[in-house]
Amino acid sequence: MLLLLRRVLPSSPPSPRALLARPLLLLPPPKTLAPAAARCLAAMASASAGATMTREAFRAAVTNTLERRLFFVPSFKIYGGVAGLYDYGPPGCAVKANVLAFWRQHFVLEEGMLEVDCPCVTPEVVLKASGHVEKFTDLMVKDEKTGNCYRADHLLKDFCKEKLERDSTLPPEKAEEFNRILAILDDLSAEQLGAKIKEYGIVAPDTKNPLSDPYPFNLMFQTCIGPSGLSPGYMRPETAQGIFVNFRDLYRYNGERLPFAAAQIGQAFRNEISPRQGLLRVREFTLAEIEHFVDPEDKSHPKFGDVSDLEFLMFPREKQLAGRSATRLKLGEAVSEGTVNNETLGYFIGRVYLFLTRLGIDKDRLRFRQHLPNEMAHYAADCWDAEIECSYGWIECVGIADRSAYDLRAHSDKSGVPLEAHEKFAEPREVEKLVIAPSKKELGLAFKGNQKMILEALEAMSETEALDLKVALESKGEVEFKVCTLGKDVTIKKNMVTINVEKKKEHQRKFTPSVIEPSFGIGRIIYCLFEHCFYQRHGKADDEQLNVFGFPPLVAPIKCTVFPLVKIEKFDVVAKKISKALTAAGISHIIDMTGNTIGKRYARTDEIGVPLAITVDSTTSVTVRDRDSKDQIRVEVDEVASVVKEVTDGQSTWADIMWRYPTHTTSAADEEAAEP
Amino acid sequence: MLLLLRRVLPSSPPSPRALLARPLLLLPPPKTLAPAAARCLAAMASASAGATMTREAFRAAVTNTLERRLFFVPSFKIYGGVAGLYDYGPPGCAVKANVLAFWRQHFVLEEGMLEVDCPCVTPEVVLKASGHVEKFTDLMVKDEKTGNCYRADHLLKDFCKEKLERDSTLPPEKAEEFNRILAILDDLSAEQLGAKIKEYGIVAPDTKNPLSDPYPFNLMFQTCIGPSGLSPGYMRPETAQGIFVNFRDLYRYNGERLPFAAAQIGQAFRNEISPRQGLLRVREFTLAEIEHFVDPEDKSHPKFGDVSDLEFLMFPREKQLAGRSATRLKLGEAVSEGTVNNETLGYFIGRVYLFLTRLGIDKDRLRFRQHLPNEMAHYAADCWDAEIECSYGWIECVGIADRSAYDLRAHSDKSGVPLEAHEKFAEPREVEKLVIAPSKKELGLAFKGNQKMILEALEAMSETEALDLKVALESKGEVEFKVCTLGKDVTIKKNMVTINVEKKKEHQRKFTPSVIEPSFGIGRIIYCLFEHCFYQRHGKADDEQLNVFGFPPLVAPIKCTVFPLVKIEKFDVVAKKISKALTAAGISHIIDMTGNTIGKRYARTDEIGVPLAITVDSTTSVTVRDRDSKDQIRVEVDEVASVVKEVTDGQSTWADIMWRYPTHTTSAADEEAAEP
Repeated sequence: MLLLLRRVLPSSPPSPRALLARPLLLLPPPKTLAPAAARCLAAMASASAGATMTREAFRAAVTNTLERRLFFVPSFKIYGGVAGLYDYGPPGCAVKANVLAFWRQHFVLEEGMLEVDCPCVTPEVVLKASGHVEKFTDLMVKDEKTGNCYRADHLLKDFCKEKLERDSTLPPEKAEEFNRILAILDDLSAEQLGAKIKEYGIVAPDTKNPLSDPYPFNLMFQTCIGPSGLSPGYMRPETAQGIFVNFRDLYRYNGERLPFAAAQIGQAFRNEISPRQGLLRVREFTLAEIEHFVDPEDKSHPKFGDVSDLEFLMFPREKQLAGRSATRLKLGEAVSEGTVNNETLGYFIGRVYLFLTRLGIDKDRLRFRQHLPNEMAHYAADCWDAEIECSYGWIECVGIADRSAYDLRAHSDKSGVPLEAHEKFAEPREVEKLVIAPSKKELGLAFKGNQKMILEALEAMSETEALDLKVALESKGEVEFKVCTLGKDVTIKKNMVTINVEKKKEHQRKFTPSVIEPSFGIGRIIYCLFEHCFYQRHGKADDEQLNVFGFPPLVAPIKCTVFPLVKIEKFDVVAKKISKALTAAGISHIIDMTGNTIGKRYARTDEIGVPLAITVDSTTSVTVRDRDSKDQIRVEVDEVASVVKEVTDGQSTWADIMWRYPTHTTSAADEEAAEP
Repeated sequence: MLLLLRRVLPSSPPSPRALLARPLLLLPPPKTLAPAAARCLAAMASASAGATMTREAFRAAVTNTLERRLFFVPSFKIYGGVAGLYDYGPPGCAVKANVLAFWRQHFVLEEGMLEVDCPCVTPEVVLKASGHVEKFTDLMVKDEKTGNCYRADHLLKDFCKEKLERDSTLPPEKAEEFNRILAILDDLSAEQLGAKIKEYGIVAPDTKNPLSDPYPFNLMFQTCIGPSGLSPGYMRPETAQGIFVNFRDLYRYNGERLPFAAAQIGQAFRNEISPRQGLLRVREFTLAEIEHFVDPEDKSHPKFGDVSDLEFLMFPREKQLAGRSATRLKLGEAVSEGTVNNETLGYFIGRVYLFLTRLGIDKDRLRFRQHLPNEMAHYAADCWDAEIECSYGWIECVGIADRSAYDLRAHSDKSGVPLEAHEKFAEPREVEKLVIAPSKKELGLAFKGNQKMILEALEAMSETEALDLKVALESKGEVEFKVCTLGKDVTIKKNMVTINVEKKKEHQRKFTPSVIEPSFGIGRIIYCLFEHCFYQRHGKADDEQLNVFGFPPLVAPIKCTVFPLVKIEKFDVVAKKISKALTAAGISHIIDMTGNTIGKRYARTDEIGVPLAITVDSTTSVTVRDRDSKDQIRVEVDEVASVVKEVTDGQSTWADIMWRYPTHTTSAADEEAAEP
């Protein structure tokens, strides 16, 4: 259901709405969570004195903690807020900065990518070329009296779900009908949606007023550039276009060599009709996108060997269509067996897997789902989504698509500037070249206004398609030929096109590079991370539940807390000394001088996911406590900053350092009940 | 001339245009550069075989290098570009990321600020409260035939400058008139500007067509939030409002203690009428803003001592008004003598100085200029701009303002949500409280429609002002009273207001905090940094000029280049080994395998400001070369990554490590002519 990351395809048959990820509906979300999640919840449930916890209760516990501790808040709250806009407060902002810093390290630096930074304000011509002006729409209905707007598919979906869940008298054939609608919801045209809304008598949910027919609403925020009012512009719906329009300069910057990748982190905007699902569907969000440009004739990747042994949950389209579930596959085999189209695409799938799991995403609730044929644009060679399971179901968080040459060609056509790469041959080569020569005259006579699209479709044929057509024309004289941009077949006769293989001498090869695009919805990844890291454990009081975010040190908003055990000046002095050493080591930390009980202070620091706490209880050595195990060790004051750095930089784990230092046994006073 | 960072002041007499920084006009930009710049250019001039270099030629050399090496490019270039929008290419983007990372380290982490991240899309109500909807305007004229738009003040300014510079027959009284206009340009009303344009017969520069009267154009990009078309919104013109509307939550997050600071880095947008000055006046830019909330009765700062000994160029308003120039002042004295209003403001001035100079801004071309009374909002206590001199003159890059309680009060009034802090007393206090009780009835009778503004002005009096008024009223019976919001004096009589000091018992004090706001135009700082770091030196060929960006390691886009001296496999192996060690150490670097001469490769790496280059010329030890001195040392292969890290992390300087390693003497082959 989530069109966060994928671009629309202009002039191709599946409507943009058909690009929405479907399987959530084809395969209804499981009533129970995946094994790891179930384990996690089971642990929580047992900790919670035998109470069980539904998805909704779990989500409420997480989001309540997130809002209370200011990980995020609804934007402009004092003015009543705006749907689909959220602010990251201090700990959320720190998590986001850590995620982006790691993204830059893991992708841009380690892979030598060319990072760019382009504006959000984008002139119309660019988004006309990309297809967004025409096709980036959702179908909307209006309350005919109040003018309130709703997404047409949401209303139909809610109606069907409501009937299926609540109506115990529903006859089986009706249930089947509603289930079928849910499965094909994204393929329904405006007319079909409108007809169903009429048939079921669906009315505006807030007022019960009648609804208008569905019509397309463009999801881009529109504005004007400059004072004249004559230059329409939009807030970019993705960052990728800024890279495509710079291809020529970037190719030159890279010494005119392929492959290379460009990357961009930035804000993107979608004026959703009616935002739902909290942080998952918002009107403004941070995207991190990579466009890896590669020779279409050689999609091998020199570093594929580094990831080929990885094994994780994959969900190829055959399994989805057969109604089976995702299975663990070895990436190397998925590529060699052709499940994944090519090595470069496979390499990025592996790198995305490493990125997400190192952040703290549970590998048992992460799967790579291949797009079904009807989800994928006609030009795309293959496409996989990294989906993460959370309380909302499986959520598309990263899209990894081989988009072939589509985007560069679109901008090349519109701007008139060639966006091409070339390969110079050491020696001139004699090549066999397929020449497709449509006869404009004959096509014009036969098809009139449609001539141009048929001509383009003929010229765009692959070698195999062209040779098949040639053979068919020679044997039968005419052939049915599918023209995607017309959405139908036309009859091509022998005199309409000449197809020959000719020999030529060439000194270089010019071509439009293919682009492989991993595109990351940073906000979605962060929200899923929040859910995967969250757990509760018993406090001292009978019914007390303590919240913990078990963030890995890499993403933890603050790496360490320093508490003087009691308010004595000499402890304060030591605390400040340690704080200074931590600052010098570049470790973000806070000093908690509140004088609450140590138990309360631990509970507060656990709740924002601080991995280590230093309690100053003497002037020579201090207690260092691990958040998750609650183990404590004693470390010399002068050494403590470097021990913390070792763990939070990822050089050592807590387990590694545990045995090197004496264990500290908690006194009764240390672990009291936490604050209410 | 630059209204990048300052906010408008609603309902106060100086028009927003009057807030533009004036002194560039009061004090015309010097024909020659400041001493340090002059030295730098002189050095370049002598290096350039005696040729002298104008500001314009210097700027052309810098921007040519910046564009050619893809530090930045005009956005959407293949479509002809959009005025005022630029992309950062790979090295520019890396510089920007480094500047922001250091900003976060220097301000957010070291000062324990609360960083937030709010959306760019902002509903109208927020920007009505802040005054932007009403007042964030420039005066515009239209070509009456084509509809082309121009800034009215730009046309008048260009006309006057042209006359002064080109018209040798100009009578002295006319020259004086034009100079006077340039000096008061920003204070002219729409009517006055229109009258001058008519008087001088100024026409549209492109067509010579007549122009419309000037009228205000709002500089915000407008859009609609949601599909109804009924919720107007804007792209934020600054990031500060996102912090103000969150004050209540942030205050709670900070344990209800003052002072504390919140910070935000993000995009801001201004729909300039006709952008000029390249990267300095753009339609979308990155701001980094701090809002430091403080008790208005105690603006001391505990860490002021850390910066009080700093001494740098300051330009207090008295010096500006007396036509004198900026002088070096000790910050501690500037605060203690009252030149700078308070310690907290002074502390931030010092921290900004350290930030900018550590980035590589030349301290002799950096000054802190105080706002003149007519530049400053009526509510502001004091305001200083960090101005950096570049080829465009002195450019406002950071604004540091004590905005008193204005912003929090504005949002409190509009939203109805109190945005206050409180101080609980240990013991109830008997306080003397000034009670100003205007008589609405008498004011209404005397002033009718103006009653409200007079009432507000009376209530807003400081204690001293109120007591002075009381004394005057008691002695004279009536007093002339200035009402800023009316822009005139009114006569207040004794029966119109009662002013008394009363005794009360209080348990706590509630107050609206003052806010001290350092606001950084990141793009402007980066552009000035480019100019300050750029120099040219002789190549081997007679007329060859080699470009160098002498970035400090902290901001250098790439820290190190690795070259195999010649294309031999064993050197390639060593180069790759070193590359791996550099990656592990987190050092951004490139390997240049092009096989160009080493001289050409050095020139290419100098031109993007890479501080260190490693030439692999043996399998056991390598040559490390410093960009600026061109000194070379020999370092063991296994040691080289840690040596590079030491220098680029700032633990050691090149001078520090020079003596520890043997010097490498350049062979003739090493330093050939660079590429053309």
